[in-house]
Amino acid sequence: MTSKLSISVIRELCRKVAIPNDEAAGQAAARQKILTKPPGSLGRLEEIAIHLARWQGRAVPRLDHVQVLVFAGSHGIAAHGVSAFPAEVTAQMVANFQAGGAAINQLSKTVGATLDVILLSNGEPTADFTRQPAMTEDEFIAAIETGFNAVASDADLICLGEMGIGNTTTAATLCAALFGGRGADWAGRGTGVDDEGLKRKARVIDAALVTHAEALSDPLEVLRRMGGRELVAIFGAVLAAREKAVPILLDGFVSTASVAALAKLSDSGLEHALAGHVSAEAQHGRLLRHLRMTPLLDLGMRLGEASGACVAVGLLRAAVACHTGMATFAEAGVSEA
Amino acid sequence: MTSKLSISVIRELCRKVAIPNDEAAGQAAARQKILTKPPGSLGRLEEIAIHLARWQGRAVPRLDHVQVLVFAGSHGIAAHGVSAFPAEVTAQMVANFQAGGAAINQLSKTVGATLDVILLSNGEPTADFTRQPAMTEDEFIAAIETGFNAVASDADLICLGEMGIGNTTTAATLCAALFGGRGADWAGRGTGVDDEGLKRKARVIDAALVTHAEALSDPLEVLRRMGGRELVAIFGAVLAAREKAVPILLDGFVSTASVAALAKLSDSGLEHALAGHVSAEAQHGRLLRHLRMTPLLDLGMRLGEASGACVAVGLLRAAVACHTGMATFAEAGVSEA
Repeated sequence: MTSKLSISVIRELCRKVAIPNDEAAGQAAARQKILTKPPGSLGRLEEIAIHLARWQGRAVPRLDHVQVLVFAGSHGIAAHGVSAFPAEVTAQMVANFQAGGAAINQLSKTVGATLDVILLSNGEPTADFTRQPAMTEDEFIAAIETGFNAVASDADLICLGEMGIGNTTTAATLCAALFGGRGADWAGRGTGVDDEGLKRKARVIDAALVTHAEALSDPLEVLRRMGGRELVAIFGAVLAAREKAVPILLDGFVSTASVAALAKLSDSGLEHALAGHVSAEAQHGRLLRHLRMTPLLDLGMRLGEASGACVAVGLLRAAVACHTGMATFAEAGVSEA
Repeated sequence: MTSKLSISVIRELCRKVAIPNDEAAGQAAARQKILTKPPGSLGRLEEIAIHLARWQGRAVPRLDHVQVLVFAGSHGIAAHGVSAFPAEVTAQMVANFQAGGAAINQLSKTVGATLDVILLSNGEPTADFTRQPAMTEDEFIAAIETGFNAVASDADLICLGEMGIGNTTTAATLCAALFGGRGADWAGRGTGVDDEGLKRKARVIDAALVTHAEALSDPLEVLRRMGGRELVAIFGAVLAAREKAVPILLDGFVSTASVAALAKLSDSGLEHALAGHVSAEAQHGRLLRHLRMTPLLDLGMRLGEASGACVAVGLLRAAVACHTGMATFAEAGVSEA
């Protein structure tokens, strides 16, 4: 069953206040206190169990179906030489995902997650946003719908990743548009550009900020004009996850930048989200601080593809296993403090 | 087949220089460069794969048998009121481990590891080391042997954890004895002592430093006089792992303090070890810096039981899965940078 969206429905969904299930969260927190360990000694694993309870709306959270969604898209701005890799790598990597040869194939298998890879608009590039909006309104809605409808109805957790040569420039442009600053403040080395490439990235971002100056106060317009299809699909998936009470795990810089507009549109827009990791891409840590998110992992990863989020699924599985499987002090006959 | 050790054999083992397999490590590093991802983009997952290759002596490392070893022991100094929990909790928690109700039971299952729990000397406490050596030489050798012989012959990785009411004070005493400083510099809140408890811990440490002042220059004597049986067993297991080319994952403050003497006895003494996490116990980060180890996780955990190491096993599995399962650029027909 797929949803048909319009801009006004999308705006409505964005403005909605997320409703946490505080009763489920309270029950989970109470259980954490009586399990056989010093209170708080599992650190963030305890917080994770409570977070999942709150946003799944279940005192005993579960991770039976962890769904990894990787959206892929092509970028008009790739023609500016903003990546160390040629633009055809996007399609080649989608083929690699389908053949099972990429990092995310191994990682999703390792943590028992399903993997769906979705190439947006058959790989058609967005327009060059240094000159015009990246997407028409119809294209924008189509990308949101693709993400919105990709969330499985039985998902207990969604990991959101992407592939798209040029898309760290797109992500940095969104950050500059939403949080201020110039190209040089947000550009990073992505797949590994040299100093000249880094300057080209900054120039593309600065040009976009000029071209779309009148739209900077509207986060959704920012996303349509300066986004990429796979980033917009991630945004749509996060909206759907909120509707369906499915917590989400963000991946790296691009994945996080994709949903930053939601935090601008609603104070509670990203409360159901956890940051799986902080990537080595220069400005991801800064972006996470803007969003008041503390990443679970810091492993110097910078691949995208949901790879960091997927590694973090292991922490969530650990948290749920302890929450559900541990004995209480009373059950185990262990003396309390 | 169990080994019988003597102090002179133990000293010999400690002084041995660990021999890394640089050929296997080089082959693993070369493979990382041709897998379908920007070079270095898997960050520490790449380092882990190469580390495992180096210390397993296999270009393609494996994690078929991950063995979690939890040693438990009782401490004479527990009588000083250095824990928030009563001393009988050590035996109660061993029963909880055996019944499958503790955190480590859930965590080891989650990462596909085997779990062995070994109570040292049937739970007999060590002597109060504020007044006399914690162990006689025979007791010390027996504890080392227990750890040494606990390492499975087919293990691909060992996670080392402990349980012992009072043992963060023991660990802090070892740190002060080996690295300098007073009780107040190394004491932490452990299972959750209050300010008075923290002062009692510092006083116990300071008393031990006075009682054993003449032994502080001999790391092995420090371990015998101010250690605990489960800490000494961890030390023995690390010696065995080095002999058997098995990499190890350390857990928290106690696990790390248990092997700190080895770093003092040989520059390469801990090169086969990774720090699974940095715990919330106050001085663990400082101890890791002394040992020049960068922890894989920082999740505010402070339970011991190998819990943090076990969660980190998930990262190692992710690293090995990518290393072994990913396609190369040539295999996948993906263009290079």
